[in-house]
Amino acid sequence: MQPPRVTLAEVNAMDQVAFVSLLGPCFEHSPWVAAETFDQRPFDTCQDLHQQLVATMLSADHEQQLALLRAHPDLVGRLAREGRLTEHSAREQAAAGLDQLTAADIEQFERYNQVYRERFGFPFIICARENRRDAILSAFPRRLRNTPDRELHGALQEVARIAWWRLIEKVRDDKHA
Amino acid sequence: MQPPRVTLAEVNAMDQVAFVSLLGPCFEHSPWVAAETFDQRPFDTCQDLHQQLVATMLSADHEQQLALLRAHPDLVGRLAREGRLTEHSAREQAAAGLDQLTAADIEQFERYNQVYRERFGFPFIICARENRRDAILSAFPRRLRNTPDRELHGALQEVARIAWWRLIEKVRDDKHA
Repeated sequence: MQPPRVTLAEVNAMDQVAFVSLLGPCFEHSPWVAAETFDQRPFDTCQDLHQQLVATMLSADHEQQLALLRAHPDLVGRLAREGRLTEHSAREQAAAGLDQLTAADIEQFERYNQVYRERFGFPFIICARENRRDAILSAFPRRLRNTPDRELHGALQEVARIAWWRLIEKVRDDKHA
Repeated sequence: MQPPRVTLAEVNAMDQVAFVSLLGPCFEHSPWVAAETFDQRPFDTCQDLHQQLVATMLSADHEQQLALLRAHPDLVGRLAREGRLTEHSAREQAAAGLDQLTAADIEQFERYNQVYRERFGFPFIICARENRRDAILSAFPRRLRNTPDRELHGALQEVARIAWWRLIEKVRDDKHA
């Protein structure tokens, strides 16, 4: 069950605590993205709000970006099996069918997760709402070939897509109310 | 008149020359973005293709990013008045109603364009297909308050949105054919 969405006008009228409480979870365990975007209000559209959040993420320093990536859980990882994902992550992984895998699939994910993490120093991140199991599995070997710098930016793009879906569950444009 | 859209399967089968010829114009006067994304194929979806193009842009060095931003025309600027925009830019500015302004509006745009360019060293860029005249004019003073680093990243996000709309005019997903 989702709470009703707030309007953008309501978002624009929030104080910083309410703003971060609402939008902080768009970025996994990283409320600083919302906190540092607060000063960009008012936002004209959900798209505008999203772009401002993403610009905060992209203009953060390298260490902050790495910390944001590292705050993500492995896909089909230990946290998922132990039921310890954030509510957002749990629903997203389920939407991609990742809660319905065979033992062989799970092993394959674990192998990929480990190789990926060793190569890049952060977990494999993909917008599970825009990909199904097969697309996710085929993305692993392709992304493993990338340079670390390119893969960092690819991963941040995935985080941006994840944030978009989380955001539009919480906020709606005023004009299309 | 737009040519018919090609499918993603056709894009994935292209050689680099055809690929850059099709997708180069998604980024204003900057075919290098498509050229350097060619090696990321195959692409699973239009969204995936877009993310890979954007990751190329974001992992380019600072000078390349500045050159990309500087390759954009002023909104309602001299090139527009002289009919010398790229076909994409001309249609986008018209879609936002920017070809139907009063003399006072045009003066206001020119003042903002000049102040913005002096502050940041590149032209004001906004996805005209997602904003109308009023939203664009209200974005100017807000964005002028940003730090240069943040505004660089905000501008790159606008370029990414512009590229998305250009891309989906050219390519369609196989599955939703």
